Amino acid sequence: MSRSTEVSIHALEGGAVRAARDTVAVEEPLELRLRAGGETRTLAITMRTPGNDLELAAGFALGEGIIRARADLAEIVGCDDGSVTIALASATMPQTAAFERRFTVTSACGVCGRTELQTLAERIAPVRSELRVDADVLYALPDRMRAAQRVFERTGGLHAAAAFDGGGALLAVREDVGRHNALDKLVGWALMEGRDLSAAIVLVSGRASYELAQKAAAARIPVLCSVSAPSSLAIELARTFGLTLVGFLRDRRANVYAGAERIVAS
Amino acid sequence: MSRSTEVSIHALEGGAVRAARDTVAVEEPLELRLRAGGETRTLAITMRTPGNDLELAAGFALGEGIIRARADLAEIVGCDDGSVTIALASATMPQTAAFERRFTVTSACGVCGRTELQTLAERIAPVRSELRVDADVLYALPDRMRAAQRVFERTGGLHAAAAFDGGGALLAVREDVGRHNALDKLVGWALMEGRDLSAAIVLVSGRASYELAQKAAAARIPVLCSVSAPSSLAIELARTFGLTLVGFLRDRRANVYAGAERIVAS
Repeated sequence: MSRSTEVSIHALEGGAVRAARDTVAVEEPLELRLRAGGETRTLAITMRTPGNDLELAAGFALGEGIIRARADLAEIVGCDDGSVTIALASATMPQTAAFERRFTVTSACGVCGRTELQTLAERIAPVRSELRVDADVLYALPDRMRAAQRVFERTGGLHAAAAFDGGGALLAVREDVGRHNALDKLVGWALMEGRDLSAAIVLVSGRASYELAQKAAAARIPVLCSVSAPSSLAIELARTFGLTLVGFLRDRRANVYAGAERIVAS
Repeated sequence: MSRSTEVSIHALEGGAVRAARDTVAVEEPLELRLRAGGETRTLAITMRTPGNDLELAAGFALGEGIIRARADLAEIVGCDDGSVTIALASATMPQTAAFERRFTVTSACGVCGRTELQTLAERIAPVRSELRVDADVLYALPDRMRAAQRVFERTGGLHAAAAFDGGGALLAVREDVGRHNALDKLVGWALMEGRDLSAAIVLVSGRASYELAQKAAAARIPVLCSVSAPSSLAIELARTFGLTLVGFLRDRRANVYAGAERIVAS
């Protein structure tokens, strides 16, 4: 279960070409199964970078509202066939949107079919956190995440999600070819370690999409930062659920799109 | 149907904070429906940036193997309820993988559930093209795509896919919050305009994932370039189907991961 692999390539530099080796991120399918009351169903099949698969499953289940706490899980079991089974403590199979409404989802989207904020509001409560973060703490986060990334440096192809405490100390970082998987792994790590993210800052590489904002809100994360742009729907969700959403966090600058009361400029 | 929208934000610069306005990319759900022989089914629900929705539907259908040519389409109809219906010329509803095998797909993945290259090989023939591209032509493409992008400059949050002829002249560019949607729109444009992409070069922003390589192969595009890293599976697919895959195309450098015979260093 390797997260990167070496391939033979031709490297072009101006008019020169030479044979070379390059390290690339591995992308492989993972089937997530849900087990409850003796029944097992396929919940999702995701393309992911191998590693932290159990955390990925746990975080995905939390983000989807299938579980709300560690106690809802009986166990999470990885199998050699490229699947992970999430066994619920409950004896009845939940009727999740995943089974009912999604036929095919394309793009960076795991939320479609119930995209209305009203539907989300039925299962996600507004984020309440007294956390206040100094702008200088925010500015330091991108460098800290990069320093903690292991695979990215070699492949240049992985997204990352990192959790920090209110003072900017790194708690954990997870990587994946998919932004959403990286955040699922991070949330799953917290869930399985019994860590509370309700006073944490989370930084993601790339864009802040609707789905990332949803996952952050479901995990009770009060401050979600991105080094790039948010989408309109991510902003709308953040404002609806009381999430602080920071974009374009780089070079001692940032845009605060929602929940600015938690950010203190010094 | 706006592709970008203005929001009020707080802009942080060092220790200063000021109220500001920012333009962000719109992200909205689009339901793709398939109609054949009087029956209509939901094919997919995707989060996309509004605009070129009919092209998106056409390109998606081609990438999924639901259609193979313009003649397979009776019509494509957009509705005000945020849906697009793909009406097939055929009187029978195809048994697509989209209906049968996908329950939930997360991450940047529309191909899961049939991720094995063998399955793809049943419907995608190897790309055969005598196209030869000078490295200097490749080097010029990123600047040309950026110059042609309309929304990106304002929002910083959109992915793009652009088609060029063998000499590097721009044929078309399409943008979306999702890389895959941008490529679907581009492929759909070619399909609906009767343009042949079998001698074209396509450049995508961001990473080259498995799904992008699949879409390129299905559209008979011989050369797929990315400004960032490819994944391991994208390389494997490109090598299997005879697609030229170029990564890290920037600053007069590039890595050729597959099909190097089509690239001529001068």
